[in-house]
Amino acid sequence: MMINDTENSVKDMLGRSGIIPLKDAQKLLEERLALCSSRAIEDVPLEQCLGRILAQDICSKEDIPPYPRSVMDGYAVKAGDTYGATEGMPAYLRVSGEVKMGEFPEAGPAVECCFKIATGGLLPPDTDAVVMLEHTVQTGTEMIEIVKPVAPGENIIGRGDDVKKGESLLKSGHCLRPQDIGLLAGLGITTLGVQPLVHVGIFSTGDEIVPFDQTPPPGKVRDMNSVNLAALAEKQGAIPTFYGVVKDDEELFLAAVQKALEENDIVIFSGSSSVGSRDLGESVVCKLADLLIHGVAIKPGKPVIVAFSGSKALFGLPGHPVSAAVAFDLFVRPVINSFSGRTFSDLPQSRTVQAICKRNMNSAGGRTDFIRVSLSRKDSGEYEAHPVLGKSGALSTMVEADGFFRIEESSQGVESGEMVVVYLYD
Amino acid sequence: MMINDTENSVKDMLGRSGIIPLKDAQKLLEERLALCSSRAIEDVPLEQCLGRILAQDICSKEDIPPYPRSVMDGYAVKAGDTYGATEGMPAYLRVSGEVKMGEFPEAGPAVECCFKIATGGLLPPDTDAVVMLEHTVQTGTEMIEIVKPVAPGENIIGRGDDVKKGESLLKSGHCLRPQDIGLLAGLGITTLGVQPLVHVGIFSTGDEIVPFDQTPPPGKVRDMNSVNLAALAEKQGAIPTFYGVVKDDEELFLAAVQKALEENDIVIFSGSSSVGSRDLGESVVCKLADLLIHGVAIKPGKPVIVAFSGSKALFGLPGHPVSAAVAFDLFVRPVINSFSGRTFSDLPQSRTVQAICKRNMNSAGGRTDFIRVSLSRKDSGEYEAHPVLGKSGALSTMVEADGFFRIEESSQGVESGEMVVVYLYD
Repeated sequence: MMINDTENSVKDMLGRSGIIPLKDAQKLLEERLALCSSRAIEDVPLEQCLGRILAQDICSKEDIPPYPRSVMDGYAVKAGDTYGATEGMPAYLRVSGEVKMGEFPEAGPAVECCFKIATGGLLPPDTDAVVMLEHTVQTGTEMIEIVKPVAPGENIIGRGDDVKKGESLLKSGHCLRPQDIGLLAGLGITTLGVQPLVHVGIFSTGDEIVPFDQTPPPGKVRDMNSVNLAALAEKQGAIPTFYGVVKDDEELFLAAVQKALEENDIVIFSGSSSVGSRDLGESVVCKLADLLIHGVAIKPGKPVIVAFSGSKALFGLPGHPVSAAVAFDLFVRPVINSFSGRTFSDLPQSRTVQAICKRNMNSAGGRTDFIRVSLSRKDSGEYEAHPVLGKSGALSTMVEADGFFRIEESSQGVESGEMVVVYLYD
Repeated sequence: MMINDTENSVKDMLGRSGIIPLKDAQKLLEERLALCSSRAIEDVPLEQCLGRILAQDICSKEDIPPYPRSVMDGYAVKAGDTYGATEGMPAYLRVSGEVKMGEFPEAGPAVECCFKIATGGLLPPDTDAVVMLEHTVQTGTEMIEIVKPVAPGENIIGRGDDVKKGESLLKSGHCLRPQDIGLLAGLGITTLGVQPLVHVGIFSTGDEIVPFDQTPPPGKVRDMNSVNLAALAEKQGAIPTFYGVVKDDEELFLAAVQKALEENDIVIFSGSSSVGSRDLGESVVCKLADLLIHGVAIKPGKPVIVAFSGSKALFGLPGHPVSAAVAFDLFVRPVINSFSGRTFSDLPQSRTVQAICKRNMNSAGGRTDFIRVSLSRKDSGEYEAHPVLGKSGALSTMVEADGFFRIEESSQGVESGEMVVVYLYD
């Protein structure tokens, strides 16, 4: 364990404001999210449903397949006719017909006869198995030798073997994957009731910020946060909308938040959230919403504001781009996920690797730190995590990094050589 | 190890056609992909570049920040004025001015004076550090006590500390993440040269297939594959286009492939690829492209066709939806990735979990098997993998499954209780 990082000790952090530990903040957020009402269901054509969240349970209205079919190219037979067949002592059957693809065979083969059948062909009456082409030898125009026996049901898929009528297939809250959409297509389902997408309004605040497509005069900088936060929201499946850059003026600020709240489920502004001389964030937030959290014992990202107005969420994120990104990940992402109506399993949601930390990293007890790292791989296959150091405002550290690891609040740091779990950036 | 699965032994599989081991097929594919030419670069507005692949190297044309700035709310000082300051023995400074946000301070504080400054404010001349507000006490209208010393450079970000002019930031082939887009916004870059998206034309073949929005008469089934394959392509960042369902008629089939090849980078048809009576796939493919692979020792997915026409790829996937999905993952996905121009790191590209296999699963030596599993979690936190059994045609097995594991060709199976690596479905 490392020596306590007195510069940023918890005592200091708690000195001036309502800063709370990360797990307390997350609990508050979870409890508040439970009070939000669900939103109106949207009907969407099946082909556009990839990644959408089901808002209905799906039961099958049909058997799939509706009739037994062959899953091999070969011959539809009565299994009994093949018993005991070997290469030395084959069974002989006459090929008295063929199942045409897409046709419904009305009658089956006679005794000691079989029908030629291709993969997907309907099993004719009076047959119960398919002998693979590979296990036959053609001995005349109409005769085959069968060199391996089949059991009843072999090489066929029976009625309802894929899906039984009435069977529950997918539950409300499920995020639709390619195979789900494929199966629903097979059931003839052409539209689905899904959760509406989550709309996120985004703006930056600060007299020193100009839109990123403008050339800043001395003393001003281009807006990185809006673009970064919009991309983070998009990655999370939400629809971001920009509301520009707003000056540090309470009236303008209030109007911007109000408009964005009317038009979105979530509003994020960055800047103006720290406890400083020009802090308008909290006062504006308190006029329009109920403040839930202001300040969390995390580094970076500490001065985050979380508030709710009914079932809409309002976030004030730090002006430092890296702090804003970390606060987004910890607080905005769970709200997008909750509003999306998605049910999460306990399977890992992120790609991670175990890596050896290559540098001592101090942390204040009581605070959760997020350390950006670049990864390299040793010949042995082990990963090494190299902390990317830099001022918290420097977005370049996140560009250089492959992911991050956490130092939990119960820990005062990680020593060089310790194993850490690195969450990879997508 | 399990007893050899004689039913599907390699001898049988290699008996009739050019079936090759998976790793040989993958090597052939990789070598052929190296011969494909790269495509024309596209200029795209920065805000639309999330997930796009850079087609240019990016160097910074500016320093970020262009001037030193404060990263804290507090007071801009000469660090020397604070040396030795403690709570018992504070340093006293007069607050003789304030740095307004977004303004360029022409002159700095006089001797034994400081300027109030907010996060993001430009450091005034004659100062070299910022004392955090938290480490000061206001003692009069214009005086502060400083209770902790700062070192030169403390709480500021210097010129070019984030990005230095001329510094290489991102390389061609990089997949753009939110932070990359944020940083490029900060550099005033408004459009990027990126790789064009990969276009994939998709159709299904077979007299027994009807489009999924039609009601199939007896003997026919709805098309699941096109919808499933389109979603798989979309998930991989490609643009899928449907070309409908084509009958088992060589002329129609040929015309469909030809049209789709003209309009796309990759064409996939499913069905008609097995070595059977109605096998049109190979003959059509051979008329329009150079056959590279027909048949791979994998289960499911064996009868896959891979062909190239110049720098366009043509795939014949099995008609069974699960086989088609496995073959897509093994052969189409790498081609989309290669055509996309993306450079992959050696970091894991998929979410995986270690799980205990709960059932004996046989496999033929020489063949690579893909076993679909649903996962459950024990109280101990360990995952258990339950193989989802079913005919290879049954897409419902992939809907029930959370992911899959591989049985390598060198193995003849996995025993109940063995650990396996499960690749999670996204």
